[in-house]
Amino acid sequence: MELSERELLEAIRRVLSGAGPEVRVGVGDDAAVLAPTAGELVLTTDALVEDVHFVRGPTGARDLGHKAIVVNVSDIAAMGASPRAAVCALTLSPDVEAAWVMELFGGMREACEEYALWLVGGDLSGGREVSIAVTVTGEVAPGRAVLRSGARPSDRIVVTGELGGSAAGLRLSQLHSMPSAPQLALVHRHLRPTARVGEGGVLARHATAMMDVSDGLAIDLSRLIGASGVGARLTLDDVPVAEGATIEDALGGGEDYELLATVPEATNVEALRLELKESFGVAVTEVGDIVEGAALTAILGDGTERILEPTGWDHFR
Amino acid sequence: MELSERELLEAIRRVLSGAGPEVRVGVGDDAAVLAPTAGELVLTTDALVEDVHFVRGPTGARDLGHKAIVVNVSDIAAMGASPRAAVCALTLSPDVEAAWVMELFGGMREACEEYALWLVGGDLSGGREVSIAVTVTGEVAPGRAVLRSGARPSDRIVVTGELGGSAAGLRLSQLHSMPSAPQLALVHRHLRPTARVGEGGVLARHATAMMDVSDGLAIDLSRLIGASGVGARLTLDDVPVAEGATIEDALGGGEDYELLATVPEATNVEALRLELKESFGVAVTEVGDIVEGAALTAILGDGTERILEPTGWDHFR
Repeated sequence: MELSERELLEAIRRVLSGAGPEVRVGVGDDAAVLAPTAGELVLTTDALVEDVHFVRGPTGARDLGHKAIVVNVSDIAAMGASPRAAVCALTLSPDVEAAWVMELFGGMREACEEYALWLVGGDLSGGREVSIAVTVTGEVAPGRAVLRSGARPSDRIVVTGELGGSAAGLRLSQLHSMPSAPQLALVHRHLRPTARVGEGGVLARHATAMMDVSDGLAIDLSRLIGASGVGARLTLDDVPVAEGATIEDALGGGEDYELLATVPEATNVEALRLELKESFGVAVTEVGDIVEGAALTAILGDGTERILEPTGWDHFR
Repeated sequence: MELSERELLEAIRRVLSGAGPEVRVGVGDDAAVLAPTAGELVLTTDALVEDVHFVRGPTGARDLGHKAIVVNVSDIAAMGASPRAAVCALTLSPDVEAAWVMELFGGMREACEEYALWLVGGDLSGGREVSIAVTVTGEVAPGRAVLRSGARPSDRIVVTGELGGSAAGLRLSQLHSMPSAPQLALVHRHLRPTARVGEGGVLARHATAMMDVSDGLAIDLSRLIGASGVGARLTLDDVPVAEGATIEDALGGGEDYELLATVPEATNVEALRLELKESFGVAVTEVGDIVEGAALTAILGDGTERILEPTGWDHFR
């Protein structure tokens, strides 16, 4: 690192300048200060760690910064809330170039502009590996946050967008051959995931439970039914698998950041589908239903039902 | 690590159970949700990284968890605000024992109880080194946050408590001989710093500028005057140096987490001193004054004035 901490902080401050009137105090004081809101405060934190969540290269810092924000915004969206502000605790190893850090903050800023939130503070440390710990705050109308624990038997299970694309894109990005155009779209989906903020707001008006699909549909659905104390049946043929991905990618791949929700049986899913399609150009697909019990089962193409093992990303194994 | 991520998360959830009604959604959902407040939202993040901020040993996890919360609460206090909730993004290396992690969260919980805030969420990752990135939110009455930028010429400079004790305690803790009782007090000050939350609330009623002393009085005062566009004169003989520490420890040692504030010349510092002494048993000492210009100077014992080089902890050098 050719810059001192002070010089780097000043450079970062320039990248982050220009906060709105809602930000009473931004980067540079002991803490940031934001205007009061009528809503409840929503709070989430998620770190990206080198060689666990990403491999650092000379390029890619901008995508990485973008993603560090988006994975947190996705958690805010999964509550039916709106993101508001972010802070970042960044650890840098001695071999990191200042230009790389500027790109990283540029990507964070891009994501903040895309999702209308402010990056209002941070902390810089040295270390052996790069780590980007982001916290995002959001807001939701009092009592309107959608939890994982509200699913009830006979609810329908829906999911936004397509699944498995990120896992397929990660695989393709590790090949050394030149990817085709559709393959590049999958790589892009891995590098630049989308948080479903608007979609979450619409789904929250109907959903009994909601979460984002960050570790794979099977493990995330098993968490949702675990929190709700119910079982679920997943119709495998109905799972919206991204083109170029497999059903295994969709069930166990992770990092898709789509929303998984349950809605009451009486919900007009077709109307919901049209609303999301028209407002956001995003599909919503019914993939199964909630049942009594605690089992997660898969309905196969021939109509037989089988226990589905929750597989997905465990950060330690 | 002998536990899977899920098992560890469940163990942590047990340590963290028992949030109050203000916490609408705690650990375990996509994000935490807190009741609305009338105040402004205060937000800060600070990470402790292995071999930079601490050396990991078989013991000491409880102190470390406590400190990870306190260093953030200190930033909230430095705004004149009250802490409210914390989240923690924790990175663990493969050799960390589950018992160590439980102690760490036990220490975080202790600090949260001590300062009346809630640990409402977190994130666990694997990595090569242990890193504890904590974000704390707080609340302050609208427009009442005290910034670093408000110091004006002729303001008096005050500081709470005593300085240099943490640096001296760190030095003593690295010796292999058995420390004496007064030395143990210094080691304790390093391992279990105190955040001046109540004191910050009282000082905020008077202060034109405030910050916490985390990197040493000289560098932190140079930051305060830099943000305010003023100069300062520090009377070295008046700096409250902790018993067993040196003036160099006080000026450049860091991690004392006392509050540094400027108050208008007309302030009755003696009345302020009595109020803080009676309410919190903590001293407040006048150590200099704000002047025109941009220079930080030291007034020596013989009355001569010298430029004071800001020295302190740079996390990269």
